[in-house]
Amino acid sequence: MPTRTLHLNAFLMGVGHHEAAWRHPRTEPARLTDVRHYQQLARIAERGRLDSVFLADSLALQGDVRHNALGGLEPLTLLAALAAVTDHVGLIATVSTTYNEPFHVARKFASLDHISGGRAGWNIVTSAGEAEARNFGIERPAHADRYARAAEFLDVVTGLWDSWEDDAVVGDRLGGVYADAGRIHPLDHDGPHFRVRGPLNTSRPPQGHPLLVQAGSSEDGKDFAARYAEAVFTAQQTLADAQAFYTDLKGRLARYGRHPGDLLVLPGISPVIGSTEREARRLEQELQDLIIPAYGLAQLSHLVGIELTEDALDRPLPDVSAETEGAQSRRRLVIDLARRENLTVRQLLGRLAGGRGHRVLAGTPERIADEIQLWFENGAADGFNVMPPVLPGGLEDFVDHVVPELQIRGLFRREYEGRTLRDNYDLPRPASRRARPPAGERPDAADTVGSADAVVAS
Amino acid sequence: MPTRTLHLNAFLMGVGHHEAAWRHPRTEPARLTDVRHYQQLARIAERGRLDSVFLADSLALQGDVRHNALGGLEPLTLLAALAAVTDHVGLIATVSTTYNEPFHVARKFASLDHISGGRAGWNIVTSAGEAEARNFGIERPAHADRYARAAEFLDVVTGLWDSWEDDAVVGDRLGGVYADAGRIHPLDHDGPHFRVRGPLNTSRPPQGHPLLVQAGSSEDGKDFAARYAEAVFTAQQTLADAQAFYTDLKGRLARYGRHPGDLLVLPGISPVIGSTEREARRLEQELQDLIIPAYGLAQLSHLVGIELTEDALDRPLPDVSAETEGAQSRRRLVIDLARRENLTVRQLLGRLAGGRGHRVLAGTPERIADEIQLWFENGAADGFNVMPPVLPGGLEDFVDHVVPELQIRGLFRREYEGRTLRDNYDLPRPASRRARPPAGERPDAADTVGSADAVVAS
Ligand SMILES: Cc1cc2nc3c(=O)[nH]c(=O)nc-3n(C[C@H](O)[C@H](O)[C@H](O)COP(=O)(O)O)c2cc1C
Ligand SMILES: Cc1cc2nc3c(=O)[nH]c(=O)nc-3n(C[C@H](O)[C@H](O)[C@H](O)COP(=O)(O)O)c2cc1C
Repeated sequence: MPTRTLHLNAFLMGVGHHEAAWRHPRTEPARLTDVRHYQQLARIAERGRLDSVFLADSLALQGDVRHNALGGLEPLTLLAALAAVTDHVGLIATVSTTYNEPFHVARKFASLDHISGGRAGWNIVTSAGEAEARNFGIERPAHADRYARAAEFLDVVTGLWDSWEDDAVVGDRLGGVYADAGRIHPLDHDGPHFRVRGPLNTSRPPQGHPLLVQAGSSEDGKDFAARYAEAVFTAQQTLADAQAFYTDLKGRLARYGRHPGDLLVLPGISPVIGSTEREARRLEQELQDLIIPAYGLAQLSHLVGIELTEDALDRPLPDVSAETEGAQSRRRLVIDLARRENLTVRQLLGRLAGGRGHRVLAGTPERIADEIQLWFENGAADGFNVMPPVLPGGLEDFVDHVVPELQIRGLFRREYEGRTLRDNYDLPRPASRRARPPAGERPDAADTVGSADAVVAS
Repeated sequence: MPTRTLHLNAFLMGVGHHEAAWRHPRTEPARLTDVRHYQQLARIAERGRLDSVFLADSLALQGDVRHNALGGLEPLTLLAALAAVTDHVGLIATVSTTYNEPFHVARKFASLDHISGGRAGWNIVTSAGEAEARNFGIERPAHADRYARAAEFLDVVTGLWDSWEDDAVVGDRLGGVYADAGRIHPLDHDGPHFRVRGPLNTSRPPQGHPLLVQAGSSEDGKDFAARYAEAVFTAQQTLADAQAFYTDLKGRLARYGRHPGDLLVLPGISPVIGSTEREARRLEQELQDLIIPAYGLAQLSHLVGIELTEDALDRPLPDVSAETEGAQSRRRLVIDLARRENLTVRQLLGRLAGGRGHRVLAGTPERIADEIQLWFENGAADGFNVMPPVLPGGLEDFVDHVVPELQIRGLFRREYEGRTLRDNYDLPRPASRRARPPAGERPDAADTVGSADAVVAS
């Protein structure tokens, strides 16, 4: 039986995941818009043989820019520039299904997949923020509507990726046949949200489909993941909660004809690394001392849906009512955390500053490897979404000290074995659903592209 | 008085601009989706000190893929990968205003401008193709409506680029002030096509505004260019027509408070280069011999708006009626060309195969430099859009043989003088229209960003 291997994704977030990272001497906030910063991070991840790097995104200036390093780069564009300086590490970009058109999204990921030689991944989000809607002239659609649109969006995008069969390009110069038009199919999608004729005007991506990643944890979010996603990011505070989430999500796969191994669960971990426990605690404390409470208070107020002011700081979190139309699962996690540990609002802010609800773990490389191993071997994780508190330093620490420890334990690869992101994650390449049927069952002409559409004169 | 210098853009089109390029032994059609091919082209352009490279785009598979190399990469994503391997050459991508949202477009170009250190340019198109609309679930809007939307689109995009003042980012770690919120402004645009609150969530691009390029030649197209564009691509067959276009366009600028030097006119030229006239003619003939008439016939039928069949080949172009809702100017040019030179349809197809209506010029480097100089010095061009028949070979020939000839004549730079695309084109960096007014006239709080919007928990 082949041993199960751990998967590691580096979540690249400006100059670090800690909300005060930009104030710490180990970072340079001016690097927020400097491509060389991100190229350095991707190279570090590749040196550590990590599966992938990942960029989050939102479609509005959210959070108080007075007190945090905001205003960075658009992920897909940035990842193309990282593809140019790396060879193996996967490149996962966040793109919203609520404020985009599937044709554009299919095309951009197909292009990134070609450009990177099969290393593109898509973190599919439905955009929980209200400010995002206002940049597109609409009201934020309700939670369930966002997921309904997302499902149809995925059907269109994967359909477009399949619109060119793998061997559609023939390249017969002498015979004058560039492509076999019988292997390029219109999509003719006609649904409640989208009408898309297709085919795509980019040939089939090297991976067939770029890797599909998702991170919603609400009921709708988990069902969506079970149906479409191949990797799931999640914020989990305790082993028990992580196990419950893992079991829940894997259990939903059968409904969609899928197997537990078809989807990887990757909880977030923010490792605050020191060569001694004490050194790790010191770095953690330095960061905590740089927190600006007003910043976190605004974030928390928004998340739980009530206005919290400075006088609330030294009291427990007040009672908060039912579900909102925003992000549902993170809200639940934060409320549970405050209740379980009896935290004041100030203490809660301290706990959220490092990882926005993801698990923060300060300690030696061995200690961090222990926890990774514990979760990995006890049905809580297939790997981790690594969220360094400061960048690039925190990623270097992880790659130079935690990764070797995981390699010694036989948990993590020493060399890349394949070339694509799917190879890294041990996930299969999907066949085109439009692949050539046996002779005698060839599609009729109406199902293949004709010659009627002319090129725009450029 | 400073000497006026010529500007040169390399129009990168798959494996060449000739429609049969993919069949010629000097190309490798498999490179259509290979990023290294485009990286090589960008490096060749940079070696020749060219101002910029440019990628066209459409949003549908148009033209008969059986007979031409179609299905390439999305330009913005590709240009980010070219930015990573070049230092000076400008990077111009085509993006449609008809099938996009201004927030996304502003953000992607701002990102590419940061990534490239100020080398991004946008070829603004309104998408004349009918097939494009069908990938977005709508009917193609009428010609005038497309340009009306484009104008509002530009107001929003430039407004978003201006939403962060240049010095908005303060980076005061000790004081805990990342940005001066008083220098980041919402847009609050509310127009017939778009409602966009802003501000952008990417800080101001290095160039202020990425360079604005356009290529419409209809009346609406020229007015749009006169109002917004800083460089214009155009297809012109004769010196007289090019002079008329140049005078017409420059004459429209004053209406918008602009000066003739604020907009550069760049006609297309497809140089078929040989060390002797005979060698050039031989290459031209080799390419003509590889033409597949059915391909060009479909293109031409679509452009002129009547169905032309193989029996039409050896007769003159039939009478064609008035304007269409598609691309207006190219249609006029093609009809005029056929009438002026009394061409049969077959002859016309031969004339269009090399440059789709752009001027094809076969000859020695000196001969090509002569024509460039003639147009440049006689009010027909500020520079050229160079469209090599085969790639990379045709671009290498141009850079190695025509560029030195232009340098010897003192027409073209020997070294890059600045760092940005605007530097290359000698165009100024626009100030933010939201730049900080003198003390006492500071905007009130409603015009600056507040702290109400919270970050989405990722
Ligand atoms: C690690 C991680 C990364 C995420 N990245 C993004 C992101 O980049 N953009 C975004 O809008 N939401 C992001 N999310 C939020 C989720 O996609 C989702 O919207 C959120 O969890 C709310 O969904 P739910 O209501 O299904 O829980 C992220 C969540 C996690 C755990
Ligand atoms: C050099 C050049 C490049 C062009 N590139 C594109 C392009 O990439 N995509 C596109 O849709 N149209 C492109 N066009 C077409 C023009 O943008 C415009 O749509 C066309 O000329 C019709 O506009 P009009 O009706 O104003 O003449 C290009 C035109 C020229 C001359």
